[in-house]
Amino acid sequence: MTFDRLWGDLEQVGRAPETGGYRRYAWTATDFTLREWFAGEAAARGLDLTVDRAGNQWAWWGDPDAAIAAGRPGVAIGSHLDSVPDGGAFDGPLGVVSALLAVDALRAKGVTPSVPIGVVNFGDEEGTRFGVACAGSRMLTGALPAARALLLRDGDGTSMAEAMARAGQDTAHVGRDQETLGRVGCFVELHVEQGRRLVEDGRPVAVGTGIWPHGRWRMEFAGQANHAGTTRLADRRDPMLDYARAVLRARALAERHGVVATCGKVVVEPNGVNAIASRVLGWLDARGADADAVHALVAELSDGVAVRAESWTAATAFDTALGDRLAAVLDDAPRLASGAGHDAGILAEAGVPTAMLFVRNPTGVSHSPAEFAEHDDCLAGVDALTAVVSDLTAVSGLAA
Amino acid sequence: MTFDRLWGDLEQVGRAPETGGYRRYAWTATDFTLREWFAGEAAARGLDLTVDRAGNQWAWWGDPDAAIAAGRPGVAIGSHLDSVPDGGAFDGPLGVVSALLAVDALRAKGVTPSVPIGVVNFGDEEGTRFGVACAGSRMLTGALPAARALLLRDGDGTSMAEAMARAGQDTAHVGRDQETLGRVGCFVELHVEQGRRLVEDGRPVAVGTGIWPHGRWRMEFAGQANHAGTTRLADRRDPMLDYARAVLRARALAERHGVVATCGKVVVEPNGVNAIASRVLGWLDARGADADAVHALVAELSDGVAVRAESWTAATAFDTALGDRLAAVLDDAPRLASGAGHDAGILAEAGVPTAMLFVRNPTGVSHSPAEFAEHDDCLAGVDALTAVVSDLTAVSGLAA
Repeated sequence: MTFDRLWGDLEQVGRAPETGGYRRYAWTATDFTLREWFAGEAAARGLDLTVDRAGNQWAWWGDPDAAIAAGRPGVAIGSHLDSVPDGGAFDGPLGVVSALLAVDALRAKGVTPSVPIGVVNFGDEEGTRFGVACAGSRMLTGALPAARALLLRDGDGTSMAEAMARAGQDTAHVGRDQETLGRVGCFVELHVEQGRRLVEDGRPVAVGTGIWPHGRWRMEFAGQANHAGTTRLADRRDPMLDYARAVLRARALAERHGVVATCGKVVVEPNGVNAIASRVLGWLDARGADADAVHALVAELSDGVAVRAESWTAATAFDTALGDRLAAVLDDAPRLASGAGHDAGILAEAGVPTAMLFVRNPTGVSHSPAEFAEHDDCLAGVDALTAVVSDLTAVSGLAA
Repeated sequence: MTFDRLWGDLEQVGRAPETGGYRRYAWTATDFTLREWFAGEAAARGLDLTVDRAGNQWAWWGDPDAAIAAGRPGVAIGSHLDSVPDGGAFDGPLGVVSALLAVDALRAKGVTPSVPIGVVNFGDEEGTRFGVACAGSRMLTGALPAARALLLRDGDGTSMAEAMARAGQDTAHVGRDQETLGRVGCFVELHVEQGRRLVEDGRPVAVGTGIWPHGRWRMEFAGQANHAGTTRLADRRDPMLDYARAVLRARALAERHGVVATCGKVVVEPNGVNAIASRVLGWLDARGADADAVHALVAELSDGVAVRAESWTAATAFDTALGDRLAAVLDDAPRLASGAGHDAGILAEAGVPTAMLFVRNPTGVSHSPAEFAEHDDCLAGVDALTAVVSDLTAVSGLAA
């Protein structure tokens, strides 16, 4: 009932009627509405709202600074509310809503946590507007330096500094926020699964073990601009043919190496119907549990193709002891690694003991309106998060 | 020497230093400079300049209306001065320069033509700005109705009507211009070859026989937007793979059917590096001497692919008697059909007896800075055009 109320409040915010997808981008009017909603939910629960130097919202049950002084920092839970273009309803919001409901459930049970509990709404997780994923958590930890972040520009030329200022966010103090980080003794992010492992396992909730190594590469195919009607096939240097071969080869190599590879973006010059392309730029996204397998794919694909690495992120492992504890609380829940980046990964890289929970997604689809979780599974996710937080905040909890 | 002077005048107009290509688009400041140049060359020769209702420039030696009254309409020669983006120097301008030089050569020989000779600069042949090729000649013949033409918009949202008006062109009377068409007893367009047939033939000049049938088709590949990192290969519906297969299949089918096929334009949604595409639109341009072979290619490619015809132009045959006469004047010049559209094709479709001359292009490349013709071959083209016009305007010329 309460889940339905919270979910219903968010359902229409930033939804594009023509696609049914969400367009919730950082520091926009839609984002402001979402932040106001979060502040309102915090106030309704008597939680203390703070906004950190990176603009992330924190709602604390208990005094996190007194807890630090006592040597027992708090337990943070939550996720993000922004979306990719025409994204789904669950990626992000399910974690925030579940965190608020976990607080409600603990209170309904009469629990008095031994350490403060913080519910977080990380800003700009998808990086849709300014091109850097997990911008809010990266600014918080300093992984994204303020000097770089504030100069990022959106498609209209607006800088992040301007966007933040227009939304009423102080930009003078953006940077690693040690005060906020110090309050987080551990962080647990609940997220909709972006795949179908739990469908196969027949379980509603899994414990995340970490984030796959992943990278982006740019492939350049050079050709010769020429007339589509007058140039004999034998006289052509058509880079679209080379691109097509690379797309199919990347897929075949991914299958052979047991990783995933995607060619989702291509830029063609001049991109005219009656012109043989002069140049095609194609991008490869490749990830997998095994970094060596990903690198082997790229090395084989590079044979005869100009491939340049644009980014590489090594594997992120979540805290093993914390993960073991969550799995034990959750009736030996299955473990799975994520092929996607998350704020949890950023906090883990910054040294915060971190874990994730994943909720079953029958379509396996994410970043799309087809992203889904059954109502019962959402409630199972809330129950799991409640159990985990209850355990972590029990009197002997964090000391165990 | 005179060729060098005329060519030198044009060499820097609309040239992009970073690519060495030309950006000469209809009704721009660059186009205005080219039109002023044409008017100046007409004036220097004492030719009468008129601008038709579609904005094409005509420079007449002799009185074309008196000739109509005498039942002996004129001979028109010329081409266009505009270009594709980063186009070459020869496609268009070679025909205009050669036409002016043919007039000079006839005069130097003391020839008095029996019918007027008109040199034409057709506007907007490439259709770069407003998306319709041969817009000037199509408006002249009525193949492109004024009501449609004037509402065409460029990439900045400027309509053709606005662009013409800003350039000082009257837009109140755009439409089929029977008065101008009536002056053209026949039309001969000289053009750089857009292929390497003449290199193989070892000849500098060929006679055009017509224009291949050609068409454009749009291929739609539907998929499912999904996360590039989290979606297992087996769970994907990735339309980029289908597009890649179609690109390679179109090439293989073109080879089998003896036609040309090009995939030069592609639009990917959402075109994100870390997103499996939800939809890919690819365009196919296919042409060949044999319309049935082109249709067979498209039919086979359509097996399992959603293909929609966007345009189809049947073969255009130039005037056979006129072509025979040109070939005879030119020492049995080789004949070749063009895979590209030309203003000559538009006039032929409108019933004007039409022919073309092609000048050897050692690179075979066109619509690119690599487009080329040797200096001696350009002069051979001028000589050929001079001989042809001399023959057609001899006292017994057109009556033969």
